[in-house]
Amino acid sequence: MEKLTIIKVGGKIVEEADTLNQLLDNFSALPGYKLLVHGGGRSATKLAAQLGIESQMVNGRRITDAETLKVVTMVYGGLVNKNIVAGLQAKGVNAIGLTGADLNVIRSVKRPVKDVDYGFVGDVEAVNGEMLASLIHQNIVPVMAPLTHDGKGNMLNTNADTIAGETAKALAKLFDVTLVYCFEKKGVLRDADDDDSVIPVITPELFRQYVVEGVIQGGMIPKLENSFSAVEAGVSRVIITLASAINQDAGTVIKK
Amino acid sequence: MEKLTIIKVGGKIVEEADTLNQLLDNFSALPGYKLLVHGGGRSATKLAAQLGIESQMVNGRRITDAETLKVVTMVYGGLVNKNIVAGLQAKGVNAIGLTGADLNVIRSVKRPVKDVDYGFVGDVEAVNGEMLASLIHQNIVPVMAPLTHDGKGNMLNTNADTIAGETAKALAKLFDVTLVYCFEKKGVLRDADDDDSVIPVITPELFRQYVVEGVIQGGMIPKLENSFSAVEAGVSRVIITLASAINQDAGTVIKK
Repeated sequence: MEKLTIIKVGGKIVEEADTLNQLLDNFSALPGYKLLVHGGGRSATKLAAQLGIESQMVNGRRITDAETLKVVTMVYGGLVNKNIVAGLQAKGVNAIGLTGADLNVIRSVKRPVKDVDYGFVGDVEAVNGEMLASLIHQNIVPVMAPLTHDGKGNMLNTNADTIAGETAKALAKLFDVTLVYCFEKKGVLRDADDDDSVIPVITPELFRQYVVEGVIQGGMIPKLENSFSAVEAGVSRVIITLASAINQDAGTVIKK
Repeated sequence: MEKLTIIKVGGKIVEEADTLNQLLDNFSALPGYKLLVHGGGRSATKLAAQLGIESQMVNGRRITDAETLKVVTMVYGGLVNKNIVAGLQAKGVNAIGLTGADLNVIRSVKRPVKDVDYGFVGDVEAVNGEMLASLIHQNIVPVMAPLTHDGKGNMLNTNADTIAGETAKALAKLFDVTLVYCFEKKGVLRDADDDDSVIPVITPELFRQYVVEGVIQGGMIPKLENSFSAVEAGVSRVIITLASAINQDAGTVIKK
């Protein structure tokens, strides 16, 4: 199968001119088929604050009321997405900005209210891998904002890591997919105090062992569980690395 | 040649739930290949005001400083565009939201400063008709926001009427194009005080005659000059009509 690299970058990278520009250089230089998924939470929080809307987070997820949905639709789908697309076009990459509504690429369902009412947050139901593959085969590079739609006319806010993971799973049926989660560290660290103690490879066996030993803990556990879920669903490998290192053989590789 | 209908709607129509929903119904019901161009100026002015940015207009055009560019990128490319796209998807239309940066469909140049410095406003240089035609032939419906890019990484604010006109001209090489400018009246009126006095057809000869007679005056003159420019460039016909009448044989037809 042909190779496809999916890069997920958080808001911090794409919201500052210097780091965005470096990312665009690095991403442009990546050979072969590629796809970018971006966040934008800091800009959303900033705009919300300017508009007098309080940003309320639960378990790291944004409670998305009607006004907040407008803010994230503007920031993720407009400001951040179009700056990336224009930047990539300037570097000769034929990018197209997409939310889940565009071409119906990701349909979601509004998260049911249990303990928490997250509001207009979408849980992914279907990724249209065929449509994305059709674009990719035309040498078009999708740039995906963390927004989906419910098929009934409503946009929904959806976590960028989830967009990247679900897109990778859907495209794994059609490509040999490498999913790269850009991270603020060089990879998964053996010693949290030593930035150079990157664990090069984690398999399910090593993961269980590291959790028992306490080497891997806290927020890193769900992140790795999600990575293994992608690998189980056919994604060839998941890499956790610095955004500045996406062209290098670096970071932590998660594989079967 | 195959037929293509290009509909341009102003901000007023797409910014209010009732009129937007009616437009989506009418647009969905249009047979054949189609493309939508939208405005969004009222929402941009509103957001700018909420952020303490004064909206300064000269000759009906928005002076676009760096902060205003962010506002229009958010509002046109994000909020308004994605609401339309999600709304069309709900009605079974496979819409894709585009700015000029996406797929490099419209490249522009920052307007040179003469008497007025319009700021980050783009004058259209090139419309990629082949790329748009490729989407259209895949039964994808482009929904175009009034934003372009300069090919150097910058978004630029561009008038929606201009986007519609230039897109129609570029696609006239590939399709039999009807360009519909939605208007707040039923068409060009013979008597400004009688909403039913629609002039059914205007040719260049009739246009000159109506101007001499004072029947057509003011802002209607440049609007019609633009329409004739599109017709001269190969667009089959330009129609000026109500947004609620795009499926009807109504309004004023501008043709050679």
